Parts: sequence; C-alpha cells; structure tokens
Amino acid sequence: MTSFAIPPLDTTLKNALHHKIQHKTKPIGALGQLETIALQIGLIQNSLTPQLCQPTMLVFAGDHGIAKSGVSPYPQAVTAQMVLNFLAGGAAINVFSRQAGITLRVIDAGVNHTFDASDDLIDAKIGMGTANFLQSPAMALEQGVTAIARGAEIARAEINAGCNIIGFGEMGIGNTSSASCLMSILTGVPIAQCVGRGTGLDDAGLTNKIDLLTQAIAHHALNTTDPCVVLSTFGGFEIAMMVGAMLAAAEQKAVLLIDGFIVTAALLVASRIQPAVLDYCVFSHCSDEQAHQMLLAEFKARPLLNMGLRLGEGTGAALAYPLVQNAVNFLNEMASFESAGVSERSA
Amino acid sequence: MTSFAIPPLDTTLKNALHHKIQHKTKPIGALGQLETIALQIGLIQNSLTPQLCQPTMLVFAGDHGIAKSGVSPYPQAVTAQMVLNFLAGGAAINVFSRQAGITLRVIDAGVNHTFDASDDLIDAKIGMGTANFLQSPAMALEQGVTAIARGAEIARAEINAGCNIIGFGEMGIGNTSSASCLMSILTGVPIAQCVGRGTGLDDAGLTNKIDLLTQAIAHHALNTTDPCVVLSTFGGFEIAMMVGAMLAAAEQKAVLLIDGFIVTAALLVASRIQPAVLDYCVFSHCSDEQAHQMLLAEFKARPLLNMGLRLGEGTGAALAYPLVQNAVNFLNEMASFESAGVSERSA
Repeated sequence: MTSFAIPPLDTTLKNALHHKIQHKTKPIGALGQLETIALQIGLIQNSLTPQLCQPTMLVFAGDHGIAKSGVSPYPQAVTAQMVLNFLAGGAAINVFSRQAGITLRVIDAGVNHTFDASDDLIDAKIGMGTANFLQSPAMALEQGVTAIARGAEIARAEINAGCNIIGFGEMGIGNTSSASCLMSILTGVPIAQCVGRGTGLDDAGLTNKIDLLTQAIAHHALNTTDPCVVLSTFGGFEIAMMVGAMLAAAEQKAVLLIDGFIVTAALLVASRIQPAVLDYCVFSHCSDEQAHQMLLAEFKARPLLNMGLRLGEGTGAALAYPLVQNAVNFLNEMASFESAGVSERSA
Repeated sequence: MTSFAIPPLDTTLKNALHHKIQHKTKPIGALGQLETIALQIGLIQNSLTPQLCQPTMLVFAGDHGIAKSGVSPYPQAVTAQMVLNFLAGGAAINVFSRQAGITLRVIDAGVNHTFDASDDLIDAKIGMGTANFLQSPAMALEQGVTAIARGAEIARAEINAGCNIIGFGEMGIGNTSSASCLMSILTGVPIAQCVGRGTGLDDAGLTNKIDLLTQAIAHHALNTTDPCVVLSTFGGFEIAMMVGAMLAAAEQKAVLLIDGFIVTAALLVASRIQPAVLDYCVFSHCSDEQAHQMLLAEFKARPLLNMGLRLGEGTGAALAYPLVQNAVNFLNEMASFESAGVSERSA
C-alpha cells in the first residue's frame, strides 16, 4: 500500500512557546484549552507565530450496501440528495463553512449516483457504493488501497495550493454501521457499546442494528487487526479516502480538524497505520453518538465542543474552527505583561 | 430605583419556528444546542428570520476595596493597567472581539485611576473603587442605584444605534469576592462553596479568602435579600452597572450573551429584580471557577462552551458568539427537505 512518513512533532520550541503563552496578559492557564491548542499548532508549524492558511473542509461522500438492511431510518438515496444539497449550498456544512471562511470541497468517494460534472465536486468515485458487509467484504482490498491513495492525493493538492488546516467531514447513509464495526474490531470494545442511534433510530431500530452488526462481525470472523483488512471488510469508500487524506495531511504537517464519530473512526484506522497522525489532530467536538465519547477517550482527546451535535458533514469541525483561529490569534496578537506594562502576580 | 418593564417572551411563533427547524435538511435534533438557541432568538425577535445586528461587547471595569485585603494574587493597579491594555487593543477580549466582528466598548464604572479622555472609553465612573466591604458597605445604596441607571443608559444607547445582541464582560481585581458574596446571600449556598481561586490563588490563599468573606457576611448580617441592598453591600460598581445594562437590554428585547462567574453573578442580581431577564440570555460558557457551575445550575442553564476558561473580560462570550451566529444562520440559510428535494426519514 501507499506508505506515509509522518514526522514526529519537533519539540524544539516547546519551552519558548510555553513561555510566550505564560507571559500574555492573563492569569496563567486562564485560556484553558485554547492554550493547549496554541502550543500544539506552534509545535506542528515549528513556529512562535503560527498561521492558519486557507482552511479547507473536505467532505467525503459514499454509499453503503448495508443501508439496504435497515440500519438507518433514511433511504440510501439521501446520500446523493445531500451531495446535491452541498453543491447547491443549502446544507448545514455550507452555512457553517461560509460563516467561518472555510473553503468547502465535496468529494464523491463512491456515491450510488452519477453526478453531472461540477467544479464544486471532486470525482474520486471508487464504485457505486460498497457491498453489503453482512454478506461480503464492503470492498476489495485493492479498492481500499486505491481509496487511501486517492484521499492522499486530494489532501496534498489542497496543501500544495497553500492550505495548512484541513477539516474532515462525511456523508453516507449507513456509515455509522461501518464506524461501529471498525471501532469494535480495532479497539476490542464489544460491538453493542460501539453502536448508537445514528441519524435517529428508535429502540427497536437500535436493537436490530446491534443484532445485524454482531452477525456481520461473526460472519467475517477476522483473525487480524490489520487496519487495511478491517477497513476494506467494513467500509466505506468515504472512510477509506479520509484515512488517506488524514495521513497525507499529517505528513505535510497540516493541522487536522476532526469532526464526529465517523471521522474519528477513520482517524482510528489512520492511527493504526501511522500513530504519529494523532499529533496533528485537533478534536472539534464530542457528538451525541455515545460511542464517539468512548472513541475520544481511546485517544485521550478533550474535544472543544460538546453541544449535542450528531449531524456529521464536518459540522462540528466547522463550528469549532473559530476557536482554533482564536488560539492562534491570542498567541500572535495579545500583549505580554511586559509590553503592556501590566503588573504580574505576586509570587 | 429605576424600573424596568421586561416583556415576557412572545410565544406566538413557537410552533412555526419549531416546524422550520424540524424541516431543515438534517436529522431531527441533530444540531443540538444550536437548535435551542435558534428557537430562543426567533422568539426574542418574534421572527422566523431573526438577524443579529451590530454585536457589541460591553466590558465594565471597576476597583474593589477588598483587593487590598489579599483576596487576589494581583495588585489593584492591574485593573487600570488592563483597561489601558483594552484601549491599546492587546488583551484577549480585543483579539477575540476583532476575530468575531464584535464592537468592543470599555466602560470605566469605577476604576481607581483617572484615565485620559478617549473615544474608546465610556466614562461612567461612580467612584475611585468601592469601599472595602470587610469594614463597610462597598457603596452607598444611591451609588448602586446610579450605577444601575448608568448601565441602563449605556445599553440603550447601543441598542438605539442598531445593536441587538450584547455581550457582557468585566475587569476588576477582587471582583470574584463580590460575586461570591452576592451568590451566597441571594441563593443561600454557603459562602465556602461560592468561593474559587479567582485569577489563581493557591490553597492558603483560598482558605484565607473564604475566611475573609465569611467574616464580611457575618459583619453585615443582612436580614434582607433585597437585591439592591445586597448589591450595594458587596459591590462592585462594574457589577451594578452590568445589572442595569442587562435589564435595559432585555427590556429592549436584545439578546444577552452571558460570560463567566462575575457576569453570571450580576445576572443573578438582575434576575432578582426582574426574573424575565433570563428569557433573553444565552449562556456562553462554564468557567473553571467552581462556583460558576453551581450558579449556572441555579438558572438551569446549559452553556455553549466548557473549555476551562477563567479569564473574564467577556472572553467566553466573544468566543461563543460565532456559535450563536451559526444558530441564526442555519435557521435562515439551510434548505428544507422539500426545497432541496431530500427524502425525509421513514416513520
């Protein structure tokens, strides 16, 4: 498969960044998580004056064979309909990206629909949706490898054009089922605890979803946790493409803005390929999907927002972006005690 | 005292707003707290297409006699120094307000320093800092009434000029001590639970602060919970002025963006004068100051952010403002299932 060489964070400037943050005109630690993020981005960019350039949201869309087995209250057709909604500018991710000044790119990773060519849509289609993983692997191993490589190309193109912070979002009816299976196999958490209500299943629907995914995992009976094998078994195309985009973005030292449960599951796969990818991640929010909280704990991540969001599309990442911007801004723009002539605290 | 007539929320449009939110292209409830805020602002403005205009941050500054008794690790002079830092554009609230497009107004409510006249500073000085409430009331009752009236004027001037959302912030070395006493007397929570580390007291400092405030409360032995009496006893000028500004802003149906512990304590006083003020409040964050969490619970408030902030100045409110903007934006800009041709969920 495509290989990635993600550099470990260069910690040369750690003390200098810490000193700069401590001497801003505020009590020590008073900006909480913003201070942690300012330090992290300073280290990622190896700079005392980091800058965020051309923030870009990559929204990967793909269909899932398992959507036909009743794991979602929405029909599969909604994936394509929502892609058209993205292209028309009417979805939540459009609204939030516009507000935050984020460029939105929509990628057809494998939607079961043939779209007209559009400047706003990146055609990276691997297939017309994955196979139903209740019966067979979601995709062939080579398709997974191709999707990872294609995702990497897409991220590199943005970075080569000047972007240094990438938000990740997704659309795919049924994709919480893939995310749950990936999480269960790769972390060892029983599948029942990895399953949530997705876009809004009721109790019976939730029980059914757990039963189906339990069957699927038993059916494949994987005797490996090789991330590429697990990924191709449970899908989907949009998740595989995100894995590649994340690894390439970290390789290029971009900041990765991680959205909800499905994006975090993609990151789990990416981190099993290259653990160093995690050093480049800012976790934007904890979704209402219960498994997301457990997955964040796996990464010891403290997300910025916890607002009961469960929409996907990258919406949590877009909503959190201004906070990340402000972390960088305070580092660059705030006065120090010395420069402002403000007395420091007594010892 | 000045009287305020805050209208109760007009709920005429409640069902129509709810319907509009439910039919946006997203699973029901998937935008979490943003949906609650969109509904609230629609009701405040009595509109299906609410707009946020000329967002303004009012930062009230005042000095506290009790600062001389060792309740803060910073000297009283820092209040004036930080006001100068605000005017020079170098404080955290400057950085975050600039980023969010919020107009910042700094108000001298009673700083122990004579500032040069400046277009950027509103001179509303009630005195050169409050008296030390360990020995005597922080201010005369008439001073409290004057401060409330002056705060109301300041808020009305902004609203008359076209602003319809006001963030509240403060600066005043020692003002967590006032806030703790106001909270304890008005809610009945024992003072020890209303006291936190402020700008960063150590354990000994915290114990000392609790002892001093326990003495102060015993000394005054108020046999009333009249909010104006309690306010004038424990101060400060900036808190009293915020109370007036909040009540006037709600009277004019503006949205109030509530910051941290001290601002929330001012709101507590305001709500004991006119409980309807609470209908107009969006709670921006839960600070690291332990008492803030309890005070938010008193209002059954679920704040937007919980990032370990404990800076004051209105910084939490400024950081949360883009989320409030996005709540309004999704209501106005997102497509409905019908308009976008997206299939709704099965029953």
